[in-house]
Amino acid sequence: MAGTDSTQPHWATMPYGGPAIILVRPQLGENIGMCCRAMLNNGLLDLRLVEPRDPWPNEKGRAAASGADIVVDAVQVFDTVSEAVADLNRVFAATARPRDSSQIVLTPREAAPTFHSSAQEGIKTGVLFGPEAKGLSNDDVVMADAILAVPLNPAFKSLNLAQAVFCIAYEWYQTGVDMDAWREETSTRGAAPALKKDLIHLFEHLEQELDDCGFLRPPEKRPTMVQNIRIMFQRAQLTDQEVRTMRGIISGLTRKHLRGRR
Amino acid sequence: MAGTDSTQPHWATMPYGGPAIILVRPQLGENIGMCCRAMLNNGLLDLRLVEPRDPWPNEKGRAAASGADIVVDAVQVFDTVSEAVADLNRVFAATARPRDSSQIVLTPREAAPTFHSSAQEGIKTGVLFGPEAKGLSNDDVVMADAILAVPLNPAFKSLNLAQAVFCIAYEWYQTGVDMDAWREETSTRGAAPALKKDLIHLFEHLEQELDDCGFLRPPEKRPTMVQNIRIMFQRAQLTDQEVRTMRGIISGLTRKHLRGRR
Repeated sequence: MAGTDSTQPHWATMPYGGPAIILVRPQLGENIGMCCRAMLNNGLLDLRLVEPRDPWPNEKGRAAASGADIVVDAVQVFDTVSEAVADLNRVFAATARPRDSSQIVLTPREAAPTFHSSAQEGIKTGVLFGPEAKGLSNDDVVMADAILAVPLNPAFKSLNLAQAVFCIAYEWYQTGVDMDAWREETSTRGAAPALKKDLIHLFEHLEQELDDCGFLRPPEKRPTMVQNIRIMFQRAQLTDQEVRTMRGIISGLTRKHLRGRR
Repeated sequence: MAGTDSTQPHWATMPYGGPAIILVRPQLGENIGMCCRAMLNNGLLDLRLVEPRDPWPNEKGRAAASGADIVVDAVQVFDTVSEAVADLNRVFAATARPRDSSQIVLTPREAAPTFHSSAQEGIKTGVLFGPEAKGLSNDDVVMADAILAVPLNPAFKSLNLAQAVFCIAYEWYQTGVDMDAWREETSTRGAAPALKKDLIHLFEHLEQELDDCGFLRPPEKRPTMVQNIRIMFQRAQLTDQEVRTMRGIISGLTRKHLRGRR
């Protein structure tokens, strides 16, 4: 499938594909498009529709996909759930009402490792989602090996279709993402905390100036005041640049003070 | 806030409130409504808008909220970010571009425990989200103590606004949800695996009938055939009822077989 298609390497976020997403009798093209976007956000590429009410492709759907054309263009449409899952080995049914069935119930987080290990063993997986208003029928749920259900506010647990797809795609991606690479990519410029020796020099500079101006009095309170000030600046996790900025601020304020006294 | 309002106990999914969600200059009322729904799905009640382009309340927004009226009706609108965060103690900025800043970057999953521990200590938290098209400005991001960023497909990481809100609300809820209560609520009827003694009786019944009809021949292959059949039925994790069903099936097939021979 697209997920392992070597002609589109820049879309393959993992060295193997994720689950196929199968929307059963979806109603709104717009929701299908939002599902495409949610899938591509999380590196899923294989979307299948069973009897969509709005024909596909569809302009509202493409607009709602916000540029996830690689998913939009690869969508496959089927007449029945049986045909849509025919080439898969393991199928999950996403439903908010697991009680109706006697199948095994997993959360998306619990199921995520299974999607990865299955793909690595060459076992193709998929997840069925029901129509917006009613969810999957019992006949659809029986097509699945197990149920996926999301722990949500019991008083308001009906998810928007694209949110349900997002949730499962997100858990899949989070389980497989290379967090070291992500940290590398998102690490902010020079955000590492300064060396302690530079921080201690800052403290000594500040305390020298505060002694000079008489702030650290009376002497019996000095140790506690120094401790509290050091704790306050420690907590700020100052970077190298920020330590230099603070020393400049102290020098600046001291000069102004001296000028004021002249 | 609403999250701890004793007049609406059935909406309070946790004994304490979650983070306020602050949408900065959101454009579409529909997106705001979808945020309301995503929040209530995950037990968040406190939504704040700063300079929404579409006026609020707004009919498209209410429709998109799909019944999350408790959130829709409690929305507060502010002129500036400063006013929207004034009564909060700790603020995060959700952004896809953490490199622009030198603030600490956490994933929603990493930040979730902080929301819970803060609330339990009486520290009020909030999360800023930027407008659909552009995200938060640098001036907005500087209002925050830390950045929230979601590890996503690097080639397609722009989330729909409601998906971004969902992601953070979901991680908050998952970290606090009482999974024992959830299991209790979702446990499927009689789905527990049968006792091994009943399964062994089923195996013995089946193997007796298979010996009688000559299926388990030649004798030197019998042990392996029996093992493979037992493994197959073990894997199905049969329930009590299913063991009885299987025994009925064996009896039924045997009777038919006998009738066929008469």
